[in-house]
Amino acid sequence: MRKELTSVTRIDDSINAIEGLECWGIKEGKNGLGIVRCKGKISGVFTTNRMRAAPVMVTAQHVRKGEFKGLVVNSGNANAFTGVKGLEDAKRMANMLASRLSCKLEEVAVCSTGIIGRRLDMGWIESKIDEVFARLENSREAARNFAKAITTTDRFLKEYAVKVSDGDERAVIAGVAKGAGMIAPSMKPVPAATMLAFIFTDANLTKTEMDRFLVDAVERSFNVATVDGDTSTNDTVLLISTCKKRIDKELFRKALTEVCFQLAKMIVKDGEGATKVFEVHVRNAKNNEDASRAAKAVANSLLVKTAIFGCDANWGRIIAALGYSGIDLTENITLSFEGRDEEVHLLEKGEQTGLESVASEFLRRNDDFKIVIDLHLGNGKGYAIGCDLSYDYVRFNAEYTT
Amino acid sequence: MRKELTSVTRIDDSINAIEGLECWGIKEGKNGLGIVRCKGKISGVFTTNRMRAAPVMVTAQHVRKGEFKGLVVNSGNANAFTGVKGLEDAKRMANMLASRLSCKLEEVAVCSTGIIGRRLDMGWIESKIDEVFARLENSREAARNFAKAITTTDRFLKEYAVKVSDGDERAVIAGVAKGAGMIAPSMKPVPAATMLAFIFTDANLTKTEMDRFLVDAVERSFNVATVDGDTSTNDTVLLISTCKKRIDKELFRKALTEVCFQLAKMIVKDGEGATKVFEVHVRNAKNNEDASRAAKAVANSLLVKTAIFGCDANWGRIIAALGYSGIDLTENITLSFEGRDEEVHLLEKGEQTGLESVASEFLRRNDDFKIVIDLHLGNGKGYAIGCDLSYDYVRFNAEYTT
Repeated sequence: MRKELTSVTRIDDSINAIEGLECWGIKEGKNGLGIVRCKGKISGVFTTNRMRAAPVMVTAQHVRKGEFKGLVVNSGNANAFTGVKGLEDAKRMANMLASRLSCKLEEVAVCSTGIIGRRLDMGWIESKIDEVFARLENSREAARNFAKAITTTDRFLKEYAVKVSDGDERAVIAGVAKGAGMIAPSMKPVPAATMLAFIFTDANLTKTEMDRFLVDAVERSFNVATVDGDTSTNDTVLLISTCKKRIDKELFRKALTEVCFQLAKMIVKDGEGATKVFEVHVRNAKNNEDASRAAKAVANSLLVKTAIFGCDANWGRIIAALGYSGIDLTENITLSFEGRDEEVHLLEKGEQTGLESVASEFLRRNDDFKIVIDLHLGNGKGYAIGCDLSYDYVRFNAEYTT
Repeated sequence: MRKELTSVTRIDDSINAIEGLECWGIKEGKNGLGIVRCKGKISGVFTTNRMRAAPVMVTAQHVRKGEFKGLVVNSGNANAFTGVKGLEDAKRMANMLASRLSCKLEEVAVCSTGIIGRRLDMGWIESKIDEVFARLENSREAARNFAKAITTTDRFLKEYAVKVSDGDERAVIAGVAKGAGMIAPSMKPVPAATMLAFIFTDANLTKTEMDRFLVDAVERSFNVATVDGDTSTNDTVLLISTCKKRIDKELFRKALTEVCFQLAKMIVKDGEGATKVFEVHVRNAKNNEDASRAAKAVANSLLVKTAIFGCDANWGRIIAALGYSGIDLTENITLSFEGRDEEVHLLEKGEQTGLESVASEFLRRNDDFKIVIDLHLGNGKGYAIGCDLSYDYVRFNAEYTT
């Protein structure tokens, strides 16, 4: 019997789309506190920054067993570089939720984001946790409040949800994330940014499948995203499943990657001061590793980022970035800018085929586009997601703690 | 018989301090042309950017034999990513000088700096070379005109000269350099920045000694300097000696390193939009390689650079950069800011000992200082030279080609 068509469709909903999930959050000035209650399995990837924050160490430990009952997140303070006392604070924060849920400490995940090197204001958290806990519910408003609670310098909320149908069964994947600076995630299943993303699903998966699918999806999304090249001490992505719906595993994997990619792109689009988001696609490099490395070098280049902010098609800077990325390459390069409705071909096998003035006009009209680079060397392909560098990036970051 | 004291003393002079050296230069708008005439031996290091410019390829080839008669440099156009025709242009430019000097093509070094991906305006160079050549002379004014001719976005001229005395003999080392963007040199004796530096001396050295001393000095100076992390297609440092003075070799090596370090620091100080220059010194890392890598990560961090521009002692960003540098480290970190007349101790073995407000005041008073980091792990040491990131960096680079 032939299956019906499969589909992955975005839905206008957030983590409240998960049956049985309840959440709430509050934001008061720079401080925020959010809680999610939901029974299921958990998998996580964490920053590779060696100076990993206390909550990262605690949660990395907790997700090993894979059992999940709740998540508590604070914003405004990263609880990083806070030593043994910071570790105690992170555990105490997790325990505040565990005791209210009457579950094991290991069944609670804890995350923090904000300034590095200061002790958490445990008094504030303690004074607010009952208020947040009492309001836990499954609603669109609750999901929105949770999303807001975990933000720092974010200008907009980052939510993305899809329904997945394999012809027979349906499942839901819903993610929520925050940015917006110190963004160059490099996460592995062992502790390693401050971007946070929490993805919930009801798909029936084993712990092993969750671990594998999450690593794979993160490699193709968050780990190729960069705002400033600074990899945070707190980056965390958690995948939590209630395991209630049987769904085709390959379809799930594809849908999870899509959700992660869209959240990663939202994080970059909301990069501090960013006015434009772009994908760099490198094709026909010697191998995939070279392609990815080259794409990341272009996305991270300050000169490329400032040129794009200025709508200046100074493509020589792209060439220079390719050159110092360390990969194998020749001058035989094809380069184009691709927007939603238009394209500009700048170079065809090393020869200039497009006017810079035309490309500059393209940049004025497009705030979400692709830089496509063909190296004509092999079959390697890779991509990165980046944003421009504006006056506002400097403003935000010259004035953040003050 | 005991030798007298050795000394390395800065002199208020430039490359005109070299007996027999003649030079001149002109700057018209964005275009500049400079020439040096001087008989001697030559050694060079070049950018490791794989997309090396045509003049880099030509000069790297020419310095192999080590014989030098003249140098021709243009600014405004990098002659990079210009293919076979670019290579022909570079050779033709070298040949214009060789024919006027009645020397071999291989005895002429050629350098370019400016925009990438455009053919040189050979007509302009051809129309100006006789004017420049006719005015070659040994004078302070000539040296200054040469220094000006090779600039692009530089705000000030970069010249540094010392006299070296080993008790018996005296020699002179005089260098001239240009910055100011796409600065993160990584140079090797094989083609590898657009910073240009030309160092002249009258010390009697063999070609092998020149090669070795130059590589060593560049590793400790230009290669630890960074403005924006973008390694150029054109970075070149040349060491040229008339070999007339016998001088203690170890003393020469030390003096050469000092000249390179001071020129590198001038380049960073004049980094596009920079208002502050700082050295990052990492001590007691596991090994020297870790120390250098950590120092460079801190100097390159956009978040550290913007914090310093804002006189915001957000030291957590320094910690995060150390963390993602990939080196071995613990929270047992000692951190201080050291200025000419004052110091602020922020961390002592992981514990905060200084107020951020005091450190922020320090930053307001100091525009040239050291960030000193002790990792308490081993004996490794290393340093980097960086600058802050200001609104003007964004302005310059969003508007460079237009």
